[in-house]
Amino acid sequence: MIISLNYTNMMADAVGAEYGIHETDLLALRARAKTIHEEICNRRQHGEYAFFDLPFNQSMVEEVLQLSDEMSGRFKNIVVLGIGGSALGTTAVFRALRPLTHNLLTDEDRHGLPRLFVLDNVDPDGFAAHLAICDPAQTCFLVISKSGATVETTCQFLVAKQWLQQAVGEEYREHFVLITDPEKGSLRPLAVQQGYRACDIPPGVGGRFSVLTPVSLLPLALAGVDIQALLRGAADFAPHLCHGSLESNPAYLNAALQYLAYQKGLRTSVLMPYSDRLRDMADWFRQLWAESLGKKYSCDGRVVHVGPTPVNALGTTDQHSQVQLYMEGPFDKVVTFITVDHFDQDLDVLPGAPSPEMAYLEGHSMAELIRMEQLATAVALTKNHRPNCMISLPNVSPETVGALIYLFEVQTLFAGALFGVNPLDQPGVEEGKQFTYALMGRSGFEEKGQEYARIQSRLAPRVLNCQ
Amino acid sequence: MIISLNYTNMMADAVGAEYGIHETDLLALRARAKTIHEEICNRRQHGEYAFFDLPFNQSMVEEVLQLSDEMSGRFKNIVVLGIGGSALGTTAVFRALRPLTHNLLTDEDRHGLPRLFVLDNVDPDGFAAHLAICDPAQTCFLVISKSGATVETTCQFLVAKQWLQQAVGEEYREHFVLITDPEKGSLRPLAVQQGYRACDIPPGVGGRFSVLTPVSLLPLALAGVDIQALLRGAADFAPHLCHGSLESNPAYLNAALQYLAYQKGLRTSVLMPYSDRLRDMADWFRQLWAESLGKKYSCDGRVVHVGPTPVNALGTTDQHSQVQLYMEGPFDKVVTFITVDHFDQDLDVLPGAPSPEMAYLEGHSMAELIRMEQLATAVALTKNHRPNCMISLPNVSPETVGALIYLFEVQTLFAGALFGVNPLDQPGVEEGKQFTYALMGRSGFEEKGQEYARIQSRLAPRVLNCQ
Repeated sequence: MIISLNYTNMMADAVGAEYGIHETDLLALRARAKTIHEEICNRRQHGEYAFFDLPFNQSMVEEVLQLSDEMSGRFKNIVVLGIGGSALGTTAVFRALRPLTHNLLTDEDRHGLPRLFVLDNVDPDGFAAHLAICDPAQTCFLVISKSGATVETTCQFLVAKQWLQQAVGEEYREHFVLITDPEKGSLRPLAVQQGYRACDIPPGVGGRFSVLTPVSLLPLALAGVDIQALLRGAADFAPHLCHGSLESNPAYLNAALQYLAYQKGLRTSVLMPYSDRLRDMADWFRQLWAESLGKKYSCDGRVVHVGPTPVNALGTTDQHSQVQLYMEGPFDKVVTFITVDHFDQDLDVLPGAPSPEMAYLEGHSMAELIRMEQLATAVALTKNHRPNCMISLPNVSPETVGALIYLFEVQTLFAGALFGVNPLDQPGVEEGKQFTYALMGRSGFEEKGQEYARIQSRLAPRVLNCQ
Repeated sequence: MIISLNYTNMMADAVGAEYGIHETDLLALRARAKTIHEEICNRRQHGEYAFFDLPFNQSMVEEVLQLSDEMSGRFKNIVVLGIGGSALGTTAVFRALRPLTHNLLTDEDRHGLPRLFVLDNVDPDGFAAHLAICDPAQTCFLVISKSGATVETTCQFLVAKQWLQQAVGEEYREHFVLITDPEKGSLRPLAVQQGYRACDIPPGVGGRFSVLTPVSLLPLALAGVDIQALLRGAADFAPHLCHGSLESNPAYLNAALQYLAYQKGLRTSVLMPYSDRLRDMADWFRQLWAESLGKKYSCDGRVVHVGPTPVNALGTTDQHSQVQLYMEGPFDKVVTFITVDHFDQDLDVLPGAPSPEMAYLEGHSMAELIRMEQLATAVALTKNHRPNCMISLPNVSPETVGALIYLFEVQTLFAGALFGVNPLDQPGVEEGKQFTYALMGRSGFEEKGQEYARIQSRLAPRVLNCQ
């Protein structure tokens, strides 16, 4: 398995001196990279970066597999109740490693595996539509929240519980697995005192770094993903991510390239897989990159208001939507392609085109076309002085997806250090949560409710009503 | 039906003088708005903006309905082959106006309506997965390309044709509808000479403005969307979009707000519906905004490299993914919420929370929660000096979705004039297409192939291979 990072088109000799990276830019980061690496190793040894050790946590994966085996054949629908880090990784890996049509297959074609629904919102239309197609007797909800305080997940849980109680009575508890902190939070006591099944999120792993924990491993295992191969892919890739030098560690190198591009004003970072199956990896990455690096304060307490804006795109699809802007708009973007060398299936175009203008495609295949389009887009961007790089996977498999996840996680950690921010916290979402609690009348948030009223009342409303 | 634009939090008195818009900023645009309006009216009278008249085109909709009636009951699967403007609008409206689970419903629950698949890529894994769940005898492909030259659509068409021929023999033509230019292009002769069924895209309507043409109307009608109500919603909203003054035309006003924000350095424009059903409207809008405004040249030929970057987000989901960055990152974003006053369904939280920490949600509903979360997020952004505004729909219905589409289209046209660019062209994607043709060996593109080789050969490849 060779995963490669091709950064030819990030450099000044490819895209020009103004927005391209100079050899000297990279050299200048070498010493800092070494220091950061030592710091990371040091902190890791002191147990600070728990996500780093997940691919090697055999007991965790065995516990998940045991639970998954126990539940096997019992349910036709697995419904994830969770949001953000409790949902995005599962959606991304499920899409990558099960057929895109998994939920549309007949029971027989799914070989008895359940359908998997990830409900990561509190839209009643969306939630009700999904309940309506599930038979309660054959449905299991995975309630995923580390703290147990996530308001969206709590609301989903309460509604699902009512729905089950009406249908199956007091057996409803057997239709839940709570995936939560092993000790803290409001979900754990339900497991201990009320007999809900539960599964631990390893301590010290934050939401957006939790895809290789039971948060995603349990739903993925239930849906038929080979989670051992997923973890093995990450573990096998680990040596590359432990290199101390910028030039030989793909996570460090890619973080450095992104950081240098940001310094040159390229503050939007597009991640564009040329693969339907990898589409939602870009959406998962969006959280990882945005929440980890988008910060007001630096680690040393200065106000910095820093952070690249991650944008997800899909090749070839977004060539017909976003690429016009990437080619001609402001010089504020860097595009990272993810390519796949071998697709699992291919579709050949045989002779017999009904129009002579279409005949040029005869003898080619769909896989060839998608690969050529990526090359064409990359060279056109390069010619237009738009930095771009390419991560190539040999195929889409549990092993390569595991490696890719691990690569991006370490890249994010390293980028946090380059940007001088804490990549593991998210203080900026606290305020919105508190306003929500206040508006929902939760006791203890009365002051926040008054602040809300105060802010609203001091503003002259400007509303254009169209009747 | 009242659709409103609340721009209170865009203004300087809400978010501060540095990034907020001043009353005087808007006043200063008044005269220009009037001139642009007159220009738009004038050009429209001369037939330049064909998309403007679509909601009133009764013969077009009758033709679509007749074809849809003819095909009714004949197919179990409708598969759209198209990309960009031939796909995004259909996906967005289908998601908004049919149950989110439409394709998962049983034939009975779908009341005999077909499933609808929009395949807008040339990923062989994705394409093959969808073919595998369709019975060729019951599948109809809508081949959508104005020019008939779109390489992705051509490749899809050729593969689908082979697949059908193998299964149903020479009857395969009956499993296609070509939606294309009434006269030009390579698809039209197939209809005229080879007996393929065809449907016209009205002349003068570009891809990203084509959602209210047969491009989307036919697949939507086949899938059970009330396309007459969709067009009526747009038509009924038209008077608001014909106002000449900035303050009373929501399309002009919103374009002006976005333009002024861009001038203040807020170059990323986030569209964040708080509705699962409206999620993909933001993805459709992404093409409209990016391709229309992202331009190298102004109308008077100057090099400007202009264009806001549209970003799609979803409330509440992206509160747990992107909002940390929006709250604390660089001051480079403006957020537009889309809210829904009444959901079609609601889910109440009844007494009986299994944990006292969850009891505060009792007596509330899911619809209430999603609405409060939007308000909480808006006020938190405002407090953090982040401009944001809100488009409110009374509900998600064919009428409101039709109005919203029309609003965004006119807004884009007006924004093009403010930015001084042509919102109807996309010259920047031409080069990538030509490189693709060259790499696929299409005759006539040999020079482009040589240029590709030249660019590649002059660059020192920089690749980190991880084995």
